[in-house]
Amino acid sequence: MTTTNYAGLQSLIWHDDKLDLLDQRLLPEEIVYLPLVTAEDVWESIRHLKVRGAPAIGISAAYGVVLGSRAAESAEDWHADVRKAADYLATSRPTAVNLFWALDRMKARAEALAAEGHSLDALKQALLDEAIAIQSEDEETNRMIGEHALSLFQDDIGVLTHCNAGGLATAKYGTALAPFYLAKERGMNIRVFADETRPVLQGARLTAFELQQAGVDVTLICDNMAGHVMSKGWVNAVIVGTDRVAANGDVANKIGTYSVAVLAKAHGIPFYVACPLSTIDLNTPTGAEIPIEERQAEEITEGFGKRTAPQGVKVYNPAFDITPNEYVTAIITEKGIIKAPFDVNLKKLFEA
Amino acid sequence: MTTTNYAGLQSLIWHDDKLDLLDQRLLPEEIVYLPLVTAEDVWESIRHLKVRGAPAIGISAAYGVVLGSRAAESAEDWHADVRKAADYLATSRPTAVNLFWALDRMKARAEALAAEGHSLDALKQALLDEAIAIQSEDEETNRMIGEHALSLFQDDIGVLTHCNAGGLATAKYGTALAPFYLAKERGMNIRVFADETRPVLQGARLTAFELQQAGVDVTLICDNMAGHVMSKGWVNAVIVGTDRVAANGDVANKIGTYSVAVLAKAHGIPFYVACPLSTIDLNTPTGAEIPIEERQAEEITEGFGKRTAPQGVKVYNPAFDITPNEYVTAIITEKGIIKAPFDVNLKKLFEA
Repeated sequence: MTTTNYAGLQSLIWHDDKLDLLDQRLLPEEIVYLPLVTAEDVWESIRHLKVRGAPAIGISAAYGVVLGSRAAESAEDWHADVRKAADYLATSRPTAVNLFWALDRMKARAEALAAEGHSLDALKQALLDEAIAIQSEDEETNRMIGEHALSLFQDDIGVLTHCNAGGLATAKYGTALAPFYLAKERGMNIRVFADETRPVLQGARLTAFELQQAGVDVTLICDNMAGHVMSKGWVNAVIVGTDRVAANGDVANKIGTYSVAVLAKAHGIPFYVACPLSTIDLNTPTGAEIPIEERQAEEITEGFGKRTAPQGVKVYNPAFDITPNEYVTAIITEKGIIKAPFDVNLKKLFEA
Repeated sequence: MTTTNYAGLQSLIWHDDKLDLLDQRLLPEEIVYLPLVTAEDVWESIRHLKVRGAPAIGISAAYGVVLGSRAAESAEDWHADVRKAADYLATSRPTAVNLFWALDRMKARAEALAAEGHSLDALKQALLDEAIAIQSEDEETNRMIGEHALSLFQDDIGVLTHCNAGGLATAKYGTALAPFYLAKERGMNIRVFADETRPVLQGARLTAFELQQAGVDVTLICDNMAGHVMSKGWVNAVIVGTDRVAANGDVANKIGTYSVAVLAKAHGIPFYVACPLSTIDLNTPTGAEIPIEERQAEEITEGFGKRTAPQGVKVYNPAFDITPNEYVTAIITEKGIIKAPFDVNLKKLFEA
């Protein structure tokens, strides 16, 4: 599973019959891999946010099904254990779509295998292969996103990113950060500016960390410095991930993405969105239909442990914002680069 | 010195022969007034940032000269004590222009009084009157800025501000926050959005605090939410303070101001800068001549005690940015509202 020249830190590694999982709660202070040997270990890691990022959670859960069924002593017990482990793991994070998708895929595979009638060892191996395939496919998707994104970049440029759409959230490479890892593998020099991304600081804690670990030239800035850094001429492109792309190309992403997009447009800087096809939702006509989650005030008023705002102050804390399609230069997927008109071109992507 | 209907918290109050100084290091958690009775008390308060904001520092120092000379038992001793106290207080913060200006004014006043030949009691009273005058003039300047600013606002609008150009930094009212206090006095309802203002969070710790104390409707947001809040149609105007205005109307202010100005323009929202005439520097032709101080990485990586970014990460931490004049709708001074062409109109302001 290891590409020898990938310089990033892997969020999870299947190794010696166990899942070594990077404990993301300890980042950026400590790099600790937890050896997970039971489905319960995986459940606990997902529930307590030791693993984060939709793809990484799905992959972990797939291995959790393997771990939860490997002690079975008959094909029948094995199939029952797979179903039990999958149902159990589905309770770890109630709203994680990738989690359910990965578990359903593992159950379906077990169903098919059981119907085919294999030896117990062959069943166990084939199910492990399915988990490995889920991980490999995620890695390949991200590598392709990275290839397409990198085709838009030149050597020796500056690129700004917001939040964390990185390798830590996925099997490898991430989405928005994928081109930086590929550039590093090829000896190109891209200077990355990472917005710290208040209130939860994913840019400081995760993006700056994982790029620094990989030896990518990364500079951490506060969110409000993005415009200033652009005005200096230091930013040639912006690239971000996304939680959902609507059918018209409107993009929902971490709060602050919209401000970055407006600033990029004002400075004539292209604004790119990187995501797998699975993030594009043709059933959502426009960004207006995407609900914006509001989170608790304490993320802003005491996000650093210490209280930094007056008691009882009114706070507005939207978790996401919508960037209208007119600010989006291109959407970069594993199947290629999509430009305006997005309503037409996104639809084509799924017809192809 | 007290306007009974001013709803704000005063940064300093001369009262019962002592200076009651609000300890700003304890905000927003605790409201503690320190009774300062000696020049040493004032020196220590300035040095250790218990008082902040150029005008408030200057006023404190003026009272410090009064406190440092009030024990004199002859006119000659008094004059010597004034000079000694002024020279001593000048060492409290080496680069504070308002501090030196206030101390020079107190020394000059003492010089003139000594030359006129008054009784010791009359000398002491006249010097106290000078300190009170410095405070009153600052209050009056700010009130006039507030009046002009308020003439641009209507009832029931939303206004966004960045950093803290408030009453806490001045005798009273502040500059950018002055219209909100005047609106409150008059029963108008203005909804203020306060950017928290990373890295040092003056917006969260000071602006949100002082407006909340005064009963102004204030909502705290992270800096990266400004664009989103504007896109919602909740912001009808932006008003900020400034550290220096160049002759062409370019504005130096806390980092992040430029991003807010660009976002305001993109949303068709007027962007106002409030400042006393003393902040306009006709000897600085454009913003390009204003040096941008870079501050230590730790403000970003461990600003609140806890480390929130990886060790050794590269950081860019400019304290200020420059907003070019084309983003400035108007500059609001105690002498009125200045609009483009700023090079011509700012010059006229000083000729009038």
